Amino acid sequence: MQEWLRTEIVDDAPVDDEEELLPERKYPANQGFVLWLTGLSGSGKSSIARKLEQELKERSCLVEVLDGDIIRTNLSKGLGYSREDRNTNIRRIGFVANLLSRNGVAAIVAAISPYQEARENLRATTENFIEVFVNAPLEVCEARDVKGLYAMARAGEIRAFTGIDDPYEEPTNPDIVCYTAEETLEESVAKILVELEQRDCIPPKPQIEFFI
Amino acid sequence: MQEWLRTEIVDDAPVDDEEELLPERKYPANQGFVLWLTGLSGSGKSSIARKLEQELKERSCLVEVLDGDIIRTNLSKGLGYSREDRNTNIRRIGFVANLLSRNGVAAIVAAISPYQEARENLRATTENFIEVFVNAPLEVCEARDVKGLYAMARAGEIRAFTGIDDPYEEPTNPDIVCYTAEETLEESVAKILVELEQRDCIPPKPQIEFFI
Repeated sequence: MQEWLRTEIVDDAPVDDEEELLPERKYPANQGFVLWLTGLSGSGKSSIARKLEQELKERSCLVEVLDGDIIRTNLSKGLGYSREDRNTNIRRIGFVANLLSRNGVAAIVAAISPYQEARENLRATTENFIEVFVNAPLEVCEARDVKGLYAMARAGEIRAFTGIDDPYEEPTNPDIVCYTAEETLEESVAKILVELEQRDCIPPKPQIEFFI
Repeated sequence: MQEWLRTEIVDDAPVDDEEELLPERKYPANQGFVLWLTGLSGSGKSSIARKLEQELKERSCLVEVLDGDIIRTNLSKGLGYSREDRNTNIRRIGFVANLLSRNGVAAIVAAISPYQEARENLRATTENFIEVFVNAPLEVCEARDVKGLYAMARAGEIRAFTGIDDPYEEPTNPDIVCYTAEETLEESVAKILVELEQRDCIPPKPQIEFFI
């Protein structure tokens, strides 16, 4: 069992000689890990990622969200949506997530990542890799159509759209499944938090302790 | 002045109630920063990066080296050596370095990064950005020709090689200059360490303290 860290420093706490040795900065309360959210467009990956980020920050964790769209802008401009390009994109995100994770950061990835093989490669090469299948039926995702992309794909305005004219290989053995058509966002996030706690990746509950 | 951290935990130290609160993991002794080594191929960027990495690890710092060659493999496969592609490569390295830095990691970048504008953009968008000009005359770099690339460039076997048929814009206002034709590797690294200490980015000297 981890011994979780004191997460807050009180500025006006009484100071004695021993306390002067204590640092001024905050320390992360988490271990490094890569939490990988895979699922169809509109399944709720980004919403879960953002809510989880917020929850982890409240627990004094170091956390970064690597969102597929942002990564495509910053690391993968020019890549398309072929199987090869999609897998290259996934490898790049994995490379960065791993750099963060091995330095103690909780790296939350939200990316369709449709191919089983690419995800298995990540699992094999990444320490503390946790795969979350964000599972909502295609018709639910399409009805949501948050970004209007399904309509464009149906109209043939965009090609190689996952779930329409490009495959999505469902995870066969994910660590967590969030059924976002049936669960609330809070329920999905709670499920992930429990798993992270059980793995000792994060502290068991929000806690504020003082240097005494 | 920073209060630098206790960097080692002694396993067999006597335990009392208060100590049981102390964590088992090590904490970094550094602040996050991006140390950017720019210079010609063969100027000594990678050697400085590796030696510096070692020194920082000995000071219990969290450190990652982002080497241009490795990054080209992992993040920028497919990019060429046009001004645009080179700057895209630099932006990607900067994106990753910044993610690391803002999570408390010392990110050491070794990349030719020949264009002043791209470097200035980095400085403007990166907290704790430190530019190191690894300055060796072209003829020295060419005489070293560690990777045999200068010979190939002179023979016309590779094109757009910095210093031969592609420009290198020298930094006009670098934070540190290492004259690697005149200094030893140790002298160059020592110069950087002094600057990092003065900026309170790293602890002032190797130290081992125990939980008492």
